[in-house]
Amino acid sequence: MTATLATLTECIAPQLKAVDRLFTSELQSQIECVNVLIRHVSRFRGKMLRPCLVLLSGRACGELSDAHVTIATVAEMVHMATLVHDDVLDEAELRRKGATLNHLRGNEAAVLLGDYLISHSYHLCSSIDSQFASRLIARTTNEVCEGELLQIDNRNRLDLSEETYFQIIQRKTASLCATCCLLGAKLAGANEGAVARLETYGMSLGTAFQIQDDILDIVGDAGTVGKTLGIDIEKGKLTLPMIHFLRTAPREHRELLKTLLESRDGDKGEKIRNLILPSRSIEYARDAARGHIDRARTAIAGLPNSEAKQVLDIMAEFVISRPM
Amino acid sequence: MTATLATLTECIAPQLKAVDRLFTSELQSQIECVNVLIRHVSRFRGKMLRPCLVLLSGRACGELSDAHVTIATVAEMVHMATLVHDDVLDEAELRRKGATLNHLRGNEAAVLLGDYLISHSYHLCSSIDSQFASRLIARTTNEVCEGELLQIDNRNRLDLSEETYFQIIQRKTASLCATCCLLGAKLAGANEGAVARLETYGMSLGTAFQIQDDILDIVGDAGTVGKTLGIDIEKGKLTLPMIHFLRTAPREHRELLKTLLESRDGDKGEKIRNLILPSRSIEYARDAARGHIDRARTAIAGLPNSEAKQVLDIMAEFVISRPM
Repeated sequence: MTATLATLTECIAPQLKAVDRLFTSELQSQIECVNVLIRHVSRFRGKMLRPCLVLLSGRACGELSDAHVTIATVAEMVHMATLVHDDVLDEAELRRKGATLNHLRGNEAAVLLGDYLISHSYHLCSSIDSQFASRLIARTTNEVCEGELLQIDNRNRLDLSEETYFQIIQRKTASLCATCCLLGAKLAGANEGAVARLETYGMSLGTAFQIQDDILDIVGDAGTVGKTLGIDIEKGKLTLPMIHFLRTAPREHRELLKTLLESRDGDKGEKIRNLILPSRSIEYARDAARGHIDRARTAIAGLPNSEAKQVLDIMAEFVISRPM
Repeated sequence: MTATLATLTECIAPQLKAVDRLFTSELQSQIECVNVLIRHVSRFRGKMLRPCLVLLSGRACGELSDAHVTIATVAEMVHMATLVHDDVLDEAELRRKGATLNHLRGNEAAVLLGDYLISHSYHLCSSIDSQFASRLIARTTNEVCEGELLQIDNRNRLDLSEETYFQIIQRKTASLCATCCLLGAKLAGANEGAVARLETYGMSLGTAFQIQDDILDIVGDAGTVGKTLGIDIEKGKLTLPMIHFLRTAPREHRELLKTLLESRDGDKGEKIRNLILPSRSIEYARDAARGHIDRARTAIAGLPNSEAKQVLDIMAEFVISRPM
């Protein structure tokens, strides 16, 4: 996706570079050891999806300003803070299998680095003239935290409903995408209708993005996806394919999945994959993601034609076709 | 301190009650499991020192407004978020001695609860008309994170200098106190001189507060102080009395302290206490705290007389005489 996104996003290339520069300069500290730790954060740098959403939404509605670059950087920092703190949670699991001092030290640093990132994101956000963006970004991070809390509360619950699953992913993933698009449009002076369209686009795209992520965690090839898979299973997180399977598969298959999910079998990820793959549950989840992408594309269909609008349209397709 | 503070702070009692109410209502979630988790946070509720600083500084300079209650609540949330995340770090240490699943689950919830608190503090802060408070609160949390990062970077360094020690405590503790006083004064319409005086008061008081905390961690009586002591030693955190001891005590005593600090002896807290108590190092740290309190009191001496000013003056003395 990275390479293709780069080609697609040529129309916002200067602003993306500015985001990179602002990201680095904002995190710069007078305390050298902080700078050393911050350099480690680079391993969490993502695909810049959220900055792209801010910038493309702005461009689709009007002219880009410095405020767009600021908000795009804020969104990337917020996203990275959640990745860093997720890593703490993941490491916690790893440690269940054998704690090492190094892991622990990494854990402490990860908590504080995440805090440093989130603090700087708000600091940067408050440099914009209006309080509107600060208020909305903070409301969004409230929702992200709620989604994460709801997720751990439902860990290992085999009766997780689809409704709760969507509550979780809309809060923890889609809300930030929606806010990126909304603010991008708003800062470009878009009218209320266009702002609402882009918000819907972001919310639908973010929802599909997370469903696709959850599908790949089961069926993906670790080499292609580029990260450890099977983490959802390992962490007791039920996702859409599993929820569907537990509702629709033949009784003995459902019982087998439950037994596997609760077991400490080291190969359980592989076994669950082999159990779910031949069923209709992956297809069901793919259909759900497709539905959200259709909604995203419909939402922006009424916007005036522009290169940015076309790119948003293509990006929507990418989200559900990506192998990573 | 709590009981005495309550008597002292009668002049801001209605506003303190309003802080309590706002604190609870702001953290209320539509998701029930979040509310259940938030109730656990009450065990971290503190002495309301920071809200008192905002409100008394405001009262000492003019009239209190709703914005004072908002900022006082924000400050308490920020403080609690740091306590909750500190708890994660402490638990990490605990786990070194034997991980249990419960600890891990508590750890994950603590990371997310801290994030939820910090997010809501920014959200609440951004409800104030001007960006000034949001910007300053975020700059302060940047500094708090830097202080914490500098602290873990210096863990187990027996050559920690006094200069770095003060860099750490001024960032991680004093900066938030200074910001509370500055914003309290500013929101009451104080002139620049008075704002600067109260900022100095808060910075000096906060510095003394942390030195006193560090002294109590060595010499305090757990029953009176009301929390586990010896944590600094356990976590490899060198504090002012130890830094002074390692610089001035007879060579064999210094070597003994180094050996104890590096040992895994279960009784090392007790042994270190017995080693340091007869030396001049505790007195040295007390003198340092006294110096900062004198600076705090001098800073506000020039303000017009008022009940609030008198309470700020008495509070400064409390900070270094408190047993907790």
